[in-house]
Amino acid sequence: MTVPQHTEDLIRGAVEGHRRWLARAITLVEARVPGFGEALSEVGVRRRTGPGAPHVIGLTGPPGAGKSSFVDRLITCARAEGRTVAVVAVDPSSPFSGGAILGDRVRMERHTGDDGVFIRSLSSRGHLGGLSTATGEVVDLLDACGFDVVVVETVGVGQSELGVMEVADTSVVVLTPESGDTVQTMKAGLLEIADIFVVNKADRAGARRLANHLARSVELGGGPWVAPVFTASASEGWGVDEVVASAREHAAWCAGEGVEHWRRRRGDALVRLYLDLVAGRARTRALDALDADLERSIRQMELTPYRAAARVQ
Amino acid sequence: MTVPQHTEDLIRGAVEGHRRWLARAITLVEARVPGFGEALSEVGVRRRTGPGAPHVIGLTGPPGAGKSSFVDRLITCARAEGRTVAVVAVDPSSPFSGGAILGDRVRMERHTGDDGVFIRSLSSRGHLGGLSTATGEVVDLLDACGFDVVVVETVGVGQSELGVMEVADTSVVVLTPESGDTVQTMKAGLLEIADIFVVNKADRAGARRLANHLARSVELGGGPWVAPVFTASASEGWGVDEVVASAREHAAWCAGEGVEHWRRRRGDALVRLYLDLVAGRARTRALDALDADLERSIRQMELTPYRAAARVQ
Repeated sequence: MTVPQHTEDLIRGAVEGHRRWLARAITLVEARVPGFGEALSEVGVRRRTGPGAPHVIGLTGPPGAGKSSFVDRLITCARAEGRTVAVVAVDPSSPFSGGAILGDRVRMERHTGDDGVFIRSLSSRGHLGGLSTATGEVVDLLDACGFDVVVVETVGVGQSELGVMEVADTSVVVLTPESGDTVQTMKAGLLEIADIFVVNKADRAGARRLANHLARSVELGGGPWVAPVFTASASEGWGVDEVVASAREHAAWCAGEGVEHWRRRRGDALVRLYLDLVAGRARTRALDALDADLERSIRQMELTPYRAAARVQ
Repeated sequence: MTVPQHTEDLIRGAVEGHRRWLARAITLVEARVPGFGEALSEVGVRRRTGPGAPHVIGLTGPPGAGKSSFVDRLITCARAEGRTVAVVAVDPSSPFSGGAILGDRVRMERHTGDDGVFIRSLSSRGHLGGLSTATGEVVDLLDACGFDVVVVETVGVGQSELGVMEVADTSVVVLTPESGDTVQTMKAGLLEIADIFVVNKADRAGARRLANHLARSVELGGGPWVAPVFTASASEGWGVDEVVASAREHAAWCAGEGVEHWRRRRGDALVRLYLDLVAGRARTRALDALDADLERSIRQMELTPYRAAARVQ
């Protein structure tokens, strides 16, 4: 079957279950092809206003923290219950050269024969900040495709990476005993975003200390959901199932007692996506309108970037 | 002397040498007060199209890598030559809560009595991605104020942090022997941005191996400037002066043999700043136009973010 030329047809095919069309549609998001979101709206974004499928789980953490082990286990558990899973591995590759460096996907490869599992990386070929928007669009697409669980994995714990996590219902932050510096720098952001903390590689020194520090910080922060802090050693095979179970508990909390909190956070994310889309469209229009004369004037400072930007309506 | 109410007067006062007004003007940038850039254009952005003062030096690296030691030494060396220095410490605090976590500034405090030194932190209270734009504006302001050297220090090596570095003439990436994972994840971005690599805390195991790995990668990458790779131990007091000297050499290269490369990179940064400003203005306008009805429609998904964004011109 040939892949359709029109975005709307492509999305419709993806929603009907054609995996190759789904992959192609994600490539359009990656390339920031204009009109994708509107086409998705025509076909039907589900993005529910009450909790329900899919359960969107975000995982973030420094490189080498062992996130893939948790993703692997999330897939296995969901499949054992007959639920379908899509994984988006957000690639923190250079925004400058567009080079892609994916982490170890070997572990996940054993799911590739399974039709109920879809795994795809999403790289940041676009400009800075566009990754959150792209991730939001991909999650909406996977939602429309009817996946029961969507996992968004992103490497790193900088500002951009935490921004990507906003799309998730349940955010899991995976650290290691060596992540003290990261915690110190990004603490406020981590406490804001994390629903579950994991100190992985906990067979190493310092794990208990970091876990205690996080637990105290979480308690001080208060809030309607007090993020549990787990220690685990994915390589030694302990602690992983507890984290997966906790993600399920958080999903249940979002659908029950915590529904108002969930609704507010989801609403915030939608409003932010709207604002980011407006900004992204303006940037694209300005780039399209950047003729050789204007570009030369800016490069040679005949026109300051400030005056040039003020001219655009 | 009272602080003026109008942005233009405030900038004029800062340019005339009133440090308190300069500090206030930077607060306006931080708060993303509209019209700052245009006011700066009126007073006179210098942002030169050929190399010259100020030499803008960017330093980035993971938390705890010892960047402050290098900043301290850069200040001392510049002052010994009678050159004035401004330092902008870009704060990677949470974009969600706006909490500020500054690194150890104790070392720099001994410069606070010196009128030729201006030190200021810049936090990311605004939205994601706005930090690069704000940093560009602050550097332009410090340029207009006539500083000979401007140092931009930012913590972290994620996408946002490398984006901040685009404003620099000379980018120094400070790592530690433990930064192997960071290098693995952000390698393409690091190679693109770094003019100088430093493996600090080189008294620890693995320093030589990381330095050799970086040196090989730099050579493979080619390019008109082959970034030197230094090892140093700022705490033990060796290797720091070599890095400072190398930054001076890179500045000289930018003004001579490498001027075309410098001009292209500077032009790219100006065009990017223009596009970022356009996007930021559109976002601000959309936020201002977000009335209660529209916000409710988006939050409740009566209107998808995609359709809502498509309506904005």
